[in-house]
Amino acid sequence: MSLLVVGSIGTDDIETPFDKINDALGGSTTYISLAASYFTAPVSIVGVVGDDFNKEYIKMLEEHNVDLEGLQIVEGGKTFRYGCKYQYDLNVRDTLFTELNVFEHFNPVIPDKERKSSFVVLGNIAPALQINVLNQLYNPKFVVCDTMNFWIERTKEELIEVLKRVNVLIINDSEARLLSQEPNLIKAARMIRELGPEYLIIKKGEHGAMLFADNTIFSAPAYPMENIFDPTGAGDAFAGGFTGYLHKNQTLDFENMKRAVVYGSVMASFCVEKFSTKGLEDLSYLRIHDRFLEFRELTKFN
Amino acid sequence: MSLLVVGSIGTDDIETPFDKINDALGGSTTYISLAASYFTAPVSIVGVVGDDFNKEYIKMLEEHNVDLEGLQIVEGGKTFRYGCKYQYDLNVRDTLFTELNVFEHFNPVIPDKERKSSFVVLGNIAPALQINVLNQLYNPKFVVCDTMNFWIERTKEELIEVLKRVNVLIINDSEARLLSQEPNLIKAARMIRELGPEYLIIKKGEHGAMLFADNTIFSAPAYPMENIFDPTGAGDAFAGGFTGYLHKNQTLDFENMKRAVVYGSVMASFCVEKFSTKGLEDLSYLRIHDRFLEFRELTKFN
Repeated sequence: MSLLVVGSIGTDDIETPFDKINDALGGSTTYISLAASYFTAPVSIVGVVGDDFNKEYIKMLEEHNVDLEGLQIVEGGKTFRYGCKYQYDLNVRDTLFTELNVFEHFNPVIPDKERKSSFVVLGNIAPALQINVLNQLYNPKFVVCDTMNFWIERTKEELIEVLKRVNVLIINDSEARLLSQEPNLIKAARMIRELGPEYLIIKKGEHGAMLFADNTIFSAPAYPMENIFDPTGAGDAFAGGFTGYLHKNQTLDFENMKRAVVYGSVMASFCVEKFSTKGLEDLSYLRIHDRFLEFRELTKFN
Repeated sequence: MSLLVVGSIGTDDIETPFDKINDALGGSTTYISLAASYFTAPVSIVGVVGDDFNKEYIKMLEEHNVDLEGLQIVEGGKTFRYGCKYQYDLNVRDTLFTELNVFEHFNPVIPDKERKSSFVVLGNIAPALQINVLNQLYNPKFVVCDTMNFWIERTKEELIEVLKRVNVLIINDSEARLLSQEPNLIKAARMIRELGPEYLIIKKGEHGAMLFADNTIFSAPAYPMENIFDPTGAGDAFAGGFTGYLHKNQTLDFENMKRAVVYGSVMASFCVEKFSTKGLEDLSYLRIHDRFLEFRELTKFN
């Protein structure tokens, strides 16, 4: 069965202190599926775009064996557009505009052949849509979920419902603190796992990521980067690498989860080296594995 | 030869959101020497107190085999006192008072038998005093140095002189950014190492610590703690564990440095579990080594 990815697809205008780009490929589904495509196939996406969506992007995704049957193309519709500007401190991003367009009334429809998918990634979309997706699936074995401050603040009740049905939640440290109302991350992790997810991954940007499970914690380092070109999509690339590796491997014990967290970190590190999805378009499994080994060297001691 | 530690000694009034304590043992020398005492002996300290200094503290240090020949006790003088209050976010500390007392005119005098010391820890004192100490030593093989924002902002030129003569600088992430004027920590580390220290350790609190050397980086995790009782002295405990382990071992290759960073992190984690120096007073090498192994489990993957 394929790895099913549901989320946003669109085009981004991105400005960093170093450069800017317009109408670049964006959206959580895009980054997740590209990152996962280096580990497993097929990756099937469900999303919506307008008929203005650049055909080159379709072609690029297909070249990465991404199954686009679940991509709705709305005739006469305009694709979701997002614009942002990063400050000198790349951790601070100002949204310049958000044009939902066809995404405003997105109703994810899971193709029949995907309804038996056992591995599902719920990208960062409204919790109500995430529930809608889960309701269309027969009996998913492994559900990975992303969310963000926006949904934690505005639709917390729906989000809590989603969390009951999720195996892995991937969020960043500020989102973990917001969701749990607890400043200590270790306590926050325990409280969030009590809401449902067996596994919780807290991403900490330049400080790496932590994986929490029953009575055990794994701490992954960040890849030491002198130059981060564009942070957009790093979290989605992480989710794609993490889930792609597990989908390929089909083993869900903690040892394998740890490797998956590192592969997620590897894909995030490649993602931020170039604008938009460019850092994820021309990789090889060999380069990915080499960086995995670099991660191991970073923390290894006897 | 003994491990020589030079820095402040005094008493602290500490208030945290959980409790408060008055006239507790404090000062960088105290924490460093106690942490180091579990690894090696003798640890010799150089510092100054007034004759009001609690004899129980002297006794406790002696019980940890700390050599106090270099401790000046000024008759009729008052001991250095410091008061602080931690906010609910324990990363924020407000200084309530600083009474330098006998520390104001501290002139460190290295006892003759210590002037050949090859391992020296320069605790967080004025860079001019650190230079004064170095000038009294014959030919130290391994100098470990701590500093803080206060000295970086006010006595940067002297600090730069110290750094030329230092093997390892231990600072936290905000101090690294301040010293280098560079927000990216990897770049900041390179710039600071160019000032002199062959090794740089950047402490990142709840995010662990990083060791930088020529073309190589080691990333150590933080010990996952749900309850930090009192953060005072954690950085000094780190420096003590780090240097104590290396002094015992006398091997200065990178593999051993990495272990030393983890032992430093172990001692910092014990330190913050209790008020003042209490967390460092009743340990055993077995407990320390057990926690070292816990650190290894935290980051290990295959």
